[in-house]
Amino acid sequence: MNTPVESRKFAQSNDVALLISAQNKRFLINLANDSKLETHRGVLYHNDLIGLPWGSRVLSHLGSPFLLLQPSLADILIETRRNTQIMYPKDIGFVLVTMGIGPGVHVLEAGTGSGSLTTALAFMAGESGLVVSYETRPEMQRLAQKNLERVGLAHRVTFKMRDIVDGFDETDMDALFLDVPNPHDYLPQARRALKSGGYFGSILPTTNQVSLLLVALKREGFGFIDVCEVILRYYKPVPDRLRPTDRMVAHTGFLIFARTIAEQAIDASTSQTERDDLSD
Amino acid sequence: MNTPVESRKFAQSNDVALLISAQNKRFLINLANDSKLETHRGVLYHNDLIGLPWGSRVLSHLGSPFLLLQPSLADILIETRRNTQIMYPKDIGFVLVTMGIGPGVHVLEAGTGSGSLTTALAFMAGESGLVVSYETRPEMQRLAQKNLERVGLAHRVTFKMRDIVDGFDETDMDALFLDVPNPHDYLPQARRALKSGGYFGSILPTTNQVSLLLVALKREGFGFIDVCEVILRYYKPVPDRLRPTDRMVAHTGFLIFARTIAEQAIDASTSQTERDDLSD
Amino acid sequence: MNTPVESRKFAQSNDVALLISAQNKRFLINLANDSKLETHRGVLYHNDLIGLPWGSRVLSHLGSPFLLLQPSLADILIETRRNTQIMYPKDIGFVLVTMGIGPGVHVLEAGTGSGSLTTALAFMAGESGLVVSYETRPEMQRLAQKNLERVGLAHRVTFKMRDIVDGFDETDMDALFLDVPNPHDYLPQARRALKSGGYFGSILPTTNQVSLLLVALKREGFGFIDVCEVILRYYKPVPDRLRPTDRMVAHTGFLIFARTIAEQAIDASTSQTERDDLSD
Amino acid sequence: MNTPVESRKFAQSNDVALLISAQNKRFLINLANDSKLETHRGVLYHNDLIGLPWGSRVLSHLGSPFLLLQPSLADILIETRRNTQIMYPKDIGFVLVTMGIGPGVHVLEAGTGSGSLTTALAFMAGESGLVVSYETRPEMQRLAQKNLERVGLAHRVTFKMRDIVDGFDETDMDALFLDVPNPHDYLPQARRALKSGGYFGSILPTTNQVSLLLVALKREGFGFIDVCEVILRYYKPVPDRLRPTDRMVAHTGFLIFARTIAEQAIDASTSQTERDDLSD
Repeated sequence: MNTPVESRKFAQSNDVALLISAQNKRFLINLANDSKLETHRGVLYHNDLIGLPWGSRVLSHLGSPFLLLQPSLADILIETRRNTQIMYPKDIGFVLVTMGIGPGVHVLEAGTGSGSLTTALAFMAGESGLVVSYETRPEMQRLAQKNLERVGLAHRVTFKMRDIVDGFDETDMDALFLDVPNPHDYLPQARRALKSGGYFGSILPTTNQVSLLLVALKREGFGFIDVCEVILRYYKPVPDRLRPTDRMVAHTGFLIFARTIAEQAIDASTSQTERDDLSD
Repeated sequence: MNTPVESRKFAQSNDVALLISAQNKRFLINLANDSKLETHRGVLYHNDLIGLPWGSRVLSHLGSPFLLLQPSLADILIETRRNTQIMYPKDIGFVLVTMGIGPGVHVLEAGTGSGSLTTALAFMAGESGLVVSYETRPEMQRLAQKNLERVGLAHRVTFKMRDIVDGFDETDMDALFLDVPNPHDYLPQARRALKSGGYFGSILPTTNQVSLLLVALKREGFGFIDVCEVILRYYKPVPDRLRPTDRMVAHTGFLIFARTIAEQAIDASTSQTERDDLSD
Repeated sequence: MNTPVESRKFAQSNDVALLISAQNKRFLINLANDSKLETHRGVLYHNDLIGLPWGSRVLSHLGSPFLLLQPSLADILIETRRNTQIMYPKDIGFVLVTMGIGPGVHVLEAGTGSGSLTTALAFMAGESGLVVSYETRPEMQRLAQKNLERVGLAHRVTFKMRDIVDGFDETDMDALFLDVPNPHDYLPQARRALKSGGYFGSILPTTNQVSLLLVALKREGFGFIDVCEVILRYYKPVPDRLRPTDRMVAHTGFLIFARTIAEQAIDASTSQTERDDLSD
Repeated sequence: MNTPVESRKFAQSNDVALLISAQNKRFLINLANDSKLETHRGVLYHNDLIGLPWGSRVLSHLGSPFLLLQPSLADILIETRRNTQIMYPKDIGFVLVTMGIGPGVHVLEAGTGSGSLTTALAFMAGESGLVVSYETRPEMQRLAQKNLERVGLAHRVTFKMRDIVDGFDETDMDALFLDVPNPHDYLPQARRALKSGGYFGSILPTTNQVSLLLVALKREGFGFIDVCEVILRYYKPVPDRLRPTDRMVAHTGFLIFARTIAEQAIDASTSQTERDDLSD
């Protein structure tokens, strides 16, 4: 089986492909012999796509043009089929870098939701990592599983149907992300699942939720607590009239990070904010 | 040899460790038997650290306390020893997710600089990836090599001392990042090194440079051109007085992304900006 | 005649009034005996409104409720009838404070456009000030005049139909604002119209235009040059779910300010940016 | 006596003047016959300055150059002598435009603090306006009075030493601004002081305070509630290397606005946020 980032010049069976119409409609598919993609602009037969160089222009049976591309992680995340608010690439990128997510990482997540962060964790953890994702709603878990299957990453994830109030099965995990409305209710469970020095992360839309989580993080003895927002501002890519776009996404959520540290070590842990203040 | 993200509860020889003093001084070291770390607050012997659980509180020979932690990628990036402006975690996270960087990726970079992006690429590409980094200044290449050696990632990178005006040795690469002041001068070389559909990226501090690069990207037939800024805003993590910090980093650079596509396919490629406009 | 800010508890003839429907449709009118306002929700007779306390709830002849309010300057600006992009309250507020606009000021503007900045200048300059506005398009001048008449401010403005390439009639003005696409073409004219130490301002949408203007400002010997953006971010006013709105205006324009100073004095003038750097 | 905005080409006795050294030290003075300004770079005699054109370059008795300028409102605000956090021009500009502050306005303020908003209110209200400012700390009131005297605006302000928990003397005011940590405690008092349809405003540093104020505003029947931030981003004014400054002020405070409306009219009042949503 091919991973989405496997270096390869030609589209092959089992590869994840992104087809983009001239009207900028996007279709994320898993290439399979004898399959077909039906669109409003006509049918595309996978057999015709397999073997073509990535970046090729292809035509549907009605003659409509499509671009055949390998999707990046951001492309995959944007195309996640969703029943819920999903995490954006701008937030996910910063979460990955901040929480030490990379090949071989052991990481927990709750809830699974539509699976956009799950996808990113599975993508970056690679074949040697461990990704476990908890969810209480069966229909969400099924949607996330389908989303990950479509991009060839489902086999890297252990999906669990469980209320995390009862705790996690795992211990000594490197990182844990809570994408639930009330992460402040699950910090003892999170602490037991994380290894000493492990990374905790969460995303919350409102300032009130952030305050509740901060109270709980301090009470439970987490250290290195940081709160931030990642803001992405696009520019119109016109060289002689360069300017920001007229409107932008103003808010997705506040990111909160912390680390588990030994009780007696708390005094030495400081937030990024305090570090910034020191360096000014 | 251990990778920085290898799941492990105890500090071991060859692990990368972050030691943080009570004064928030940070030391990034590669644990090695019989080595020692000398600080203004006293000496720490690696043999005393090896075997401790991550997150432990340790004392120097003068009795000063330190926290023993595994660094995340962000921690490593921030501690990069630099002669030049380095790329920030906020920008690197978005670059990784947007350009499809993950385990197994084949990626080119020029120039190496102090090696902060090189570190991130090596970290995420894993043992199965290919990372090649070009630089013209011997002293910069040496610094970057040392920075990557210190965190156990140098063996994943092929360092080349070469002016990229003469082109890259590699072809069919998945992604290429130009962190040079004049990327607009090297687009034919970039195009030849990238596979069809591959990802191009660059970071530039001024709007004038962005305009020059946009002209060149359009002239050379790149598609899916996007320009954006990633802005990171920290909050003081005080639950009952939650507020943004007083001051912040206002600008690091503009990020520019594009993809190589077949000549006849250009009409179907649009920027994220245009896609946003369509979906509004 | 009543000015919009005249302190008064009851709506009176000649007052500017804002009527807001339950569907949040807004109507800016000048109260006049025997006039009426026709809306999709029914007719409102001015005679019924005159004498009511501001803030009253009134009903149309169809029984639809409206709020009767005095408009603030921001309310008036937002309701400006426009053929062109107008300046936003966020930008106008900063322009007024930065350029010393207040009661008694002598200020020039070109072009008039739909008259939103003209409105603000006339509002703040008061009866003792002097506001002169140049425009080349007759239909724009007529629109602006109507907009200012509607809010009782037209008599404070001298409208001129003239290409400013030929210069301004006025000299020794306190401040001058150029809201034209090519302000860099009119700096000698601006300099002659301003008193020594007077304020120059402009708003431009693209970075390329800003660069052109900066070149010209330096060439023409302007000092205290500043470039900035004013960004306004709204929050959903829900106390227990406080959070920024999902989307926002990302860009209206870059503001550029400068002052005319004597030739030999240029070395002592610095931008706000440099002042900030000094104080850091 | 001359107001700061009186149009005038030459510096005259009683004018407010800004003197700027080559090292960018700034001195705000009230020109008076036979007075002098002592600086580290030498003495400047007012008699030598009176009669010079604004924008002139002058020399101290030690030969150090200074620029003689009329200050804008922003210049005056920045030079406010302070014992407390003062309001910034970016916030004040938006407050003025949003709350209908202009010539002739009747406006209340509490607390006076160092008097920066007081200065702006007095500047814009003009000779025909009414500005009343409450404060409980004698030393703050004295400082504010001195700050306003220095710029010739003190006579426009009625300073009161009073705890506003006991209410305001004034009624039917056009606008009222609370710059105190607990504005939520004084809303009944504010309501009684404002005319129907009058403007309420406040600035608060933390999200928790904003939530408390929002609860109180809704409880007290205020309408048209808005919460926002004004963010100011400077650019380095270098035409061929145009870019934002490296660092910026990230936060001064959240602005909260509302209007007093009749009880039965509340259903028709909406926040700017809701209006934006309607127009999207």
